[in-house]
Amino acid sequence: MIAVLKPGTTPSQKNSLIKWLESQNVEVHISEGKDYTVLGLVGDTANIDMDLIASLETVSSVKRVSEPFKQCNRKFHPDDSVIDVSGVKIGGGNFCTMAGPCSVESREQIIEIAKSVKASGASLLRGGAFKPRTSPYDFQGMRAEGIELLLEAKKETGLPIVTEIMNANHLPLFEEVDMIQVGARNMQNFELLKELGKTKKPILLKRGLANTIKEFLMSAEYIMSEGNTNIVLCERGVRTFETYTRNTLDLSAVPVLRELTHLPVIIDPSHATGVAKYVKPMAMAAAACGADGLMIEVHNDPMHALCDGAQSITPEAFAEVAKKVNEIREVIK
Amino acid sequence: MIAVLKPGTTPSQKNSLIKWLESQNVEVHISEGKDYTVLGLVGDTANIDMDLIASLETVSSVKRVSEPFKQCNRKFHPDDSVIDVSGVKIGGGNFCTMAGPCSVESREQIIEIAKSVKASGASLLRGGAFKPRTSPYDFQGMRAEGIELLLEAKKETGLPIVTEIMNANHLPLFEEVDMIQVGARNMQNFELLKELGKTKKPILLKRGLANTIKEFLMSAEYIMSEGNTNIVLCERGVRTFETYTRNTLDLSAVPVLRELTHLPVIIDPSHATGVAKYVKPMAMAAAACGADGLMIEVHNDPMHALCDGAQSITPEAFAEVAKKVNEIREVIK
Amino acid sequence: MIAVLKPGTTPSQKNSLIKWLESQNVEVHISEGKDYTVLGLVGDTANIDMDLIASLETVSSVKRVSEPFKQCNRKFHPDDSVIDVSGVKIGGGNFCTMAGPCSVESREQIIEIAKSVKASGASLLRGGAFKPRTSPYDFQGMRAEGIELLLEAKKETGLPIVTEIMNANHLPLFEEVDMIQVGARNMQNFELLKELGKTKKPILLKRGLANTIKEFLMSAEYIMSEGNTNIVLCERGVRTFETYTRNTLDLSAVPVLRELTHLPVIIDPSHATGVAKYVKPMAMAAAACGADGLMIEVHNDPMHALCDGAQSITPEAFAEVAKKVNEIREVIK
Amino acid sequence: MIAVLKPGTTPSQKNSLIKWLESQNVEVHISEGKDYTVLGLVGDTANIDMDLIASLETVSSVKRVSEPFKQCNRKFHPDDSVIDVSGVKIGGGNFCTMAGPCSVESREQIIEIAKSVKASGASLLRGGAFKPRTSPYDFQGMRAEGIELLLEAKKETGLPIVTEIMNANHLPLFEEVDMIQVGARNMQNFELLKELGKTKKPILLKRGLANTIKEFLMSAEYIMSEGNTNIVLCERGVRTFETYTRNTLDLSAVPVLRELTHLPVIIDPSHATGVAKYVKPMAMAAAACGADGLMIEVHNDPMHALCDGAQSITPEAFAEVAKKVNEIREVIK
Repeated sequence: MIAVLKPGTTPSQKNSLIKWLESQNVEVHISEGKDYTVLGLVGDTANIDMDLIASLETVSSVKRVSEPFKQCNRKFHPDDSVIDVSGVKIGGGNFCTMAGPCSVESREQIIEIAKSVKASGASLLRGGAFKPRTSPYDFQGMRAEGIELLLEAKKETGLPIVTEIMNANHLPLFEEVDMIQVGARNMQNFELLKELGKTKKPILLKRGLANTIKEFLMSAEYIMSEGNTNIVLCERGVRTFETYTRNTLDLSAVPVLRELTHLPVIIDPSHATGVAKYVKPMAMAAAACGADGLMIEVHNDPMHALCDGAQSITPEAFAEVAKKVNEIREVIK
Repeated sequence: MIAVLKPGTTPSQKNSLIKWLESQNVEVHISEGKDYTVLGLVGDTANIDMDLIASLETVSSVKRVSEPFKQCNRKFHPDDSVIDVSGVKIGGGNFCTMAGPCSVESREQIIEIAKSVKASGASLLRGGAFKPRTSPYDFQGMRAEGIELLLEAKKETGLPIVTEIMNANHLPLFEEVDMIQVGARNMQNFELLKELGKTKKPILLKRGLANTIKEFLMSAEYIMSEGNTNIVLCERGVRTFETYTRNTLDLSAVPVLRELTHLPVIIDPSHATGVAKYVKPMAMAAAACGADGLMIEVHNDPMHALCDGAQSITPEAFAEVAKKVNEIREVIK
Repeated sequence: MIAVLKPGTTPSQKNSLIKWLESQNVEVHISEGKDYTVLGLVGDTANIDMDLIASLETVSSVKRVSEPFKQCNRKFHPDDSVIDVSGVKIGGGNFCTMAGPCSVESREQIIEIAKSVKASGASLLRGGAFKPRTSPYDFQGMRAEGIELLLEAKKETGLPIVTEIMNANHLPLFEEVDMIQVGARNMQNFELLKELGKTKKPILLKRGLANTIKEFLMSAEYIMSEGNTNIVLCERGVRTFETYTRNTLDLSAVPVLRELTHLPVIIDPSHATGVAKYVKPMAMAAAACGADGLMIEVHNDPMHALCDGAQSITPEAFAEVAKKVNEIREVIK
Repeated sequence: MIAVLKPGTTPSQKNSLIKWLESQNVEVHISEGKDYTVLGLVGDTANIDMDLIASLETVSSVKRVSEPFKQCNRKFHPDDSVIDVSGVKIGGGNFCTMAGPCSVESREQIIEIAKSVKASGASLLRGGAFKPRTSPYDFQGMRAEGIELLLEAKKETGLPIVTEIMNANHLPLFEEVDMIQVGARNMQNFELLKELGKTKKPILLKRGLANTIKEFLMSAEYIMSEGNTNIVLCERGVRTFETYTRNTLDLSAVPVLRELTHLPVIIDPSHATGVAKYVKPMAMAAAACGADGLMIEVHNDPMHALCDGAQSITPEAFAEVAKKVNEIREVIK
């Protein structure tokens, strides 16, 4: 960590600050410039409150030199992580498409969709059982029954399943679920992250609506700090002032995350845009900039979908997306 | 709900849409304009997916006419709600200042601060026991022990206490806590909100970092829909591109919320700005625009605070803020 | 336009509002629902202040039915516009790559870069002569001399040139410039837009840092309303809270604009990310989602670039980008 | 400026970087830490491209130590600047209220409003003659004639006038205007700023919709760098995701700017909220947090205002706002 002192700081102010810093168990290196003095702080700076130091009268600014994320940091793990979800590999050159309905609605629905997305090349089945809805009066998902139906669809098709958890107390219901999703609204539900860190399940962690890439990685770090390193990151749009799309898909997060972390990164164009007709171009763009996979909402009857029908595409449209994405993948190899 | 059809929609398209809408149990009123046809949908439109209809080929746009929040809506409850926190009233003309340290750190610390903020006119003691931190390597709070110390400080001073919950499983620890805080990161942790809705405890609900006022009210609605109507709303800054302050305090939320809801609204200038020296002017501004209270971080030794020291003010500074806020209150009465 | 009246509006309030609306030269259609009355306003609603009506006591909300942009609206011009820049076509299936340095720095520099980007397939040469800089103390461009040098590079290579204008009074200097760029900071410099609308020059209009897609199209409309329909739109990143990239590239603007307007849309990944190593993946993504072209900063010696060196790529890197983009173009055809 | 080198940088890489930096005319101070080497750059670092250095392979991060704004920086001018607008003082304890209609519409209108706002204590008359409108089809202001009418209102009431300029070529029309406003959309129209810097007129500079406080000050710096130091800053709301208000008023900009600059800071609650009923609470909040003045839209007949009627208040409402603001001013003295 580096602290820059203001011009005009007196030697006694300087000394008292240095003494305080040393009492916090860091070594202080002093570098005197013409106008400014720079203090380099070495040692366990993780416990020092950067904002506090920045707020001191004599301090002009403070800067952390090293990144706060460790286990997910590519610096300490240069090779791509490959996450294995019941035999399906994600990352390290393995591209994975997850597809399925926003919500599980019935046995027939989920099995029909599972079969059709499998035929088109999806390697995981997604489907919401527990649904985070802005309004308490909206459909909240089929909950435990939804998971049962997903497991039936898995039995029928062989596709591993991914579905969202909203409460660590529900973990026993997820025992046979292949990959557990943490939704955008729970990205900083640290208590949930810690509980998932104690399992061995692959986790699909979605970026929060207004969270920075650094915070996103710190949330992955929460899971990893408890022992679970099976994490796939998912960018699904951030909130801006634009209203033609539900959110603004931040595709540049793909190359940025590729550089910062060894964890795989996938894109959810359905939630990002909120509009079915924009799913295909954004899925192709995601593949082109190097994403490790896609999560796409597919519904056999979007007109009757119980939630988020507007952003679901038909199985036929999905087949076309999957085909084009494969061709893009050939180019970037 | 209103749906505007595109120019050029054929009568048969119109009919098939209307038939589908009627099958969703809504009555459809048709109004033909020169270029556009407008459908007014009456009945239980809560179950209709607005985005889905908007995505149909023949539909130009859709608009919800009524607000989705009900129990917290001032339309159906014109009088201000007054929330009683162990004898301390908030709202309906009752101004309440909550003060205390970011984190409970020790018995001495919390009791000393409690005494000093009480002497300066605070009516509730705040203090973090469970701390949501961006990094798993940062101090996570004293947890259960922190609550014990808060209760000791309450016994010493008589001040009711407010402290944050992060996990519904911790509720038994909050039995003697007077008011339970839901932090900004958990504003859309719907599972937690529902559990709090089953208690009778006063809830301090903080607005999420990038949540709209409508979403904020829908989260209050989650708590109320389970039976608990004792809610105080707290604006604490939203995330923007500005970096001189930690967040951007959205003070216009005060008059907007005053109009939309009967629930009290307080302001947290400490988290909003993240800088101690900006707490006083923003606290005064909050009082001037009609807030029902303040939540302010006070620390007897900001240099040694274990978290968020940069935004804490001293007990002396707090006394000065409280005095000035009272004078402002006299003006706006 | 549609105005929804509040429940409880009295007949006399209704009548007085309708009378006022009719005095504004619009026809009013009334549709009575159970709780709400909806007024459909037909006629020349362009002169009605929507916000004013929304602010009336009796009005619950107002909604514009038709889009405010006309000449650039695809509804009234279904075919793609193809813009011809001195023989280089953009749009309607014609992909165009513009490349060159952020700033023109010297005769040697601009000619060398022009030759190398031409060899790699660029079809337009970009280069800044007038530079909008946040600080008055930063390099402001070579101005008139810079345009001279661009014209020399054009003579040497045959590449048409595109360069930014900051002041309509400079138009005489742009007489031989093939395409005039309006920078993001001037997107709503309406006086400048109107002057450019009076020329016949192709205009490259960049989206403002925090402007909506609708505002972007309204700025194109300013130019078109004066008679100049030769416009290419350029998305170059919007401002968010993220800091790993300079801006957040809004690639979903490509399919959205494709739907709303007949004008071509290109992407500037250099300014959007601000980081050289992210230019290639984002250029490929832009091609994959259907952009009509790219604008890329290329510098022969990024270490010595007088501005924005961090986001410039070398001619060798540009050649590789151009090759990959071509392959992506093959896939999406 | 400080550059932090990555761990593992070789001595020869270090040397070549240092040599290059020295060739840019800066002195380099080296400070070796355990993992990181820190280079302190002293001298004329204004010409160094910070982003370029940050992008080098061996550099981990770069930080500017000193602020880029100079003439408006309070560090070099500790006393408040007091701006004199034809006898009306702003700043240094002098509070100034500017009031008037969004647009000048007629002789009667502007004179009537001028009289009434003067009677209620306004000290400057505002009124738009040249109007920046998002749509080319909206009312563009009375232009030169509007300025004539403002001057007549000035003659009648003695109130100095402030009105917006959109084009430096119009400067001759502003000869008798007392204060020239630069609107939010032109905050980074650097050509216009430079022309205004060559005049001696007091300038009211509005913050752009999505501009940082630093950029705001750099725009003031543009004007000052040409010799004109008569600048008043105006915060008028920034763009966020919230939709209940037109923009989000960033009131914390008041204490932040107070600290960073000696220039006066006023608040425009009318444009910030876009809603008449929120003007009073936000005006009071602005006064409470220490603003040097207010700019408020007042219209004698808001129902007929040609633009922005929704945010205008009546002369009666303005009188009440002015009275309450005065009382708040007494408290904060």
